[in-house]
Amino acid sequence: MTGWDPELAELRRIHAGSRDVVKETPVFSFGALSRRCGGQVVLKAENLQRTGSFKLRGTSAKLRTDAAGAARGVVTGSAGNHGQALAYAARARDLPCTIFMPTEAPVSKIEAVAAFGAEVRAEGGSVDDCVVAARELAAEKDLLFVHPFDDLDIVKGQAGVGLEIAAQVPDVARVIVPVGGGGLISGIAAAIKSERPEVEIVGVQASGCASLRASLAEGHPETVGAPSTIADGIAVKRPGDLTFALMERWLDDLAEVDDDAIAAAMVFLIERAKLATEGAGAVAVAALATGAVAPARTGTTVVVLSGGNVDANVLAAVINRAQTGAGRRVRFFTRISDRPGGLAGLLGQVAAAGGNLLDVTHVRDGVSLHVQETGVELLVECRSIEARRRLLGEMRAAGYDVEELNREETQ
Amino acid sequence: MTGWDPELAELRRIHAGSRDVVKETPVFSFGALSRRCGGQVVLKAENLQRTGSFKLRGTSAKLRTDAAGAARGVVTGSAGNHGQALAYAARARDLPCTIFMPTEAPVSKIEAVAAFGAEVRAEGGSVDDCVVAARELAAEKDLLFVHPFDDLDIVKGQAGVGLEIAAQVPDVARVIVPVGGGGLISGIAAAIKSERPEVEIVGVQASGCASLRASLAEGHPETVGAPSTIADGIAVKRPGDLTFALMERWLDDLAEVDDDAIAAAMVFLIERAKLATEGAGAVAVAALATGAVAPARTGTTVVVLSGGNVDANVLAAVINRAQTGAGRRVRFFTRISDRPGGLAGLLGQVAAAGGNLLDVTHVRDGVSLHVQETGVELLVECRSIEARRRLLGEMRAAGYDVEELNREETQ
Repeated sequence: MTGWDPELAELRRIHAGSRDVVKETPVFSFGALSRRCGGQVVLKAENLQRTGSFKLRGTSAKLRTDAAGAARGVVTGSAGNHGQALAYAARARDLPCTIFMPTEAPVSKIEAVAAFGAEVRAEGGSVDDCVVAARELAAEKDLLFVHPFDDLDIVKGQAGVGLEIAAQVPDVARVIVPVGGGGLISGIAAAIKSERPEVEIVGVQASGCASLRASLAEGHPETVGAPSTIADGIAVKRPGDLTFALMERWLDDLAEVDDDAIAAAMVFLIERAKLATEGAGAVAVAALATGAVAPARTGTTVVVLSGGNVDANVLAAVINRAQTGAGRRVRFFTRISDRPGGLAGLLGQVAAAGGNLLDVTHVRDGVSLHVQETGVELLVECRSIEARRRLLGEMRAAGYDVEELNREETQ
Repeated sequence: MTGWDPELAELRRIHAGSRDVVKETPVFSFGALSRRCGGQVVLKAENLQRTGSFKLRGTSAKLRTDAAGAARGVVTGSAGNHGQALAYAARARDLPCTIFMPTEAPVSKIEAVAAFGAEVRAEGGSVDDCVVAARELAAEKDLLFVHPFDDLDIVKGQAGVGLEIAAQVPDVARVIVPVGGGGLISGIAAAIKSERPEVEIVGVQASGCASLRASLAEGHPETVGAPSTIADGIAVKRPGDLTFALMERWLDDLAEVDDDAIAAAMVFLIERAKLATEGAGAVAVAALATGAVAPARTGTTVVVLSGGNVDANVLAAVINRAQTGAGRRVRFFTRISDRPGGLAGLLGQVAAAGGNLLDVTHVRDGVSLHVQETGVELLVECRSIEARRRLLGEMRAAGYDVEELNREETQ
């Protein structure tokens, strides 16, 4: 299968054939990131694709290409984007669809799949269990099992992202792509390298689940242990057999980013590009912002935002994490007089230093205190790292014995 | 000035003349809102405009039209989008620019203006003070003072949004627009009504600053008291003289939305459209989502997202507020045994009922407790309103005396 020689004409035919289901997503030049990394950066906003991710391209292509196999219905196991995408594509082709989902999947994701008309069976402990159950049902009922990435028809569908990039960004020189199982980057590489082999394709994984690095080192797909990353959409423990071979052949480089960088990139995209992305969707931006990947020296660097399906609660937590990571939130312990007005005086000092009080707790036990002293723990938001330093300096100058409970992490 | 008869040819010339500075923003069909309100809804994503809001259209047009007046430099007073837009437009035309900003303006906004090369003078107590200072400097140094909305050149610039809507959405039947001072809606109405007088133009204000309703009732611009809304971009205490006359002539309807509806709309846009908007930018979506404005019965309803300049911290707070408003967060007080394991038992019950614990505090003073009892206050996130009811029911069935501290607000 490594010998697959993509034909542009076929990829274009598949792309055109999906137009009733899949939409062309816009590209946006992103000045804030261009200035930060020193190159011309354009975002490919696949988070604005129907169902919120690129996955619809692959599933739509699959159901069209394998129409005979899909005739009695389709089935898969998924916790997220692939399930939504298969449900949507199946409804568009009037096919019965069953999605096995983990029992612990967020209700919002289960509801999204059900809203697209699929039968949801929330009965697996993990995605792996769901895939096993889906394969069993497919065998038993002669349904089409649709794999999320390790399938050439799926890869050919994802190639549409590459075709659009080549048309929308004529001077593209480098494309940076999130990597989970490898379907998206294989498809993009197939489309772009066929026409313009000099364009570089760079993959980015979350360091909490770097299965491709391990696999490239071994020369074959390797399975890594329990993933731990906020980029759950690319937390794939083992690349596909087909996609591994394609990535080994086409990837010019591979980088990793950690959760702090991903959270910061999500916030950067919200504040500066006004775009919401899920963790997986932001890793390519994180790679450029942290310098893990450099932009092309000449020509344009295209960053693929692969998905935008993020729960608002998760996003709020990510923002809090990013602000703490950026050093703008400081948690500290200090002691105040137990007499009336002690806390008021402390809070007046915080306000005078420009700090925004988020939380205050009295701590009377478990710490060493003099008589007529009370301990307090404060969470304060500052406008910048400089403001944080100024705040702590001013508190100390005013006689408070301040003990920082979170380290300042300069970035 | 009410006698202004807009000429399409002139509006188109101005629009074309700004193309080097202003970009055409995309429109997106928004299925989730279409289904919710029962009409065909398209978003005009002016939050993706350069500088993050539509304001750039007006300032860019103004500096081009009044090039002679602007030759020695331009000045304004602003806390936000107008200041950024003027700074950006001035830099594009190589003009010196001074922006007076309130001393309490967020550092992020001050930095954004400074990044566009303007001189920032953070010295006013309020935006009104800043405007006074800007006018004084303009008179003293013979600079061009640029008003944020009450200026026909500015209105003609904002008309570009209307021209683009007419071209991008041929079957547009109704346009819903956020209203602050009235520059945006006047411009959109001028462009659209000139060509298609039957298209309805509906304004939306925040109920915390409904200055247009008061003004329409009186028949002249009225000043309302201290604004209180998260939609600070449209918290304008008095419509302009020019824009009031234009709105009185062209508006087909006017609606209001409260902060809970605005917060919910911001979250809805993030989760379903993957777009970040500021409070002001989301009011038109809030109006459709709450039913304050109905969609057109035939043809497409266009919703203008006027701006996206929202601080991530503010967004996180808005998300928390929206989740509480949606009844998914419950804060309650209960009593547990003071013996070891009392809290563990309670939290086990919460987990078993599917609740996600966000905060727990011991309350030992100021409440009535038996001996060997401790009070605890819990903040728990539920998956839905149904889950919240189930949680409280199960807690009570398990013998806990649960006292809700926030009301469930069904929407």
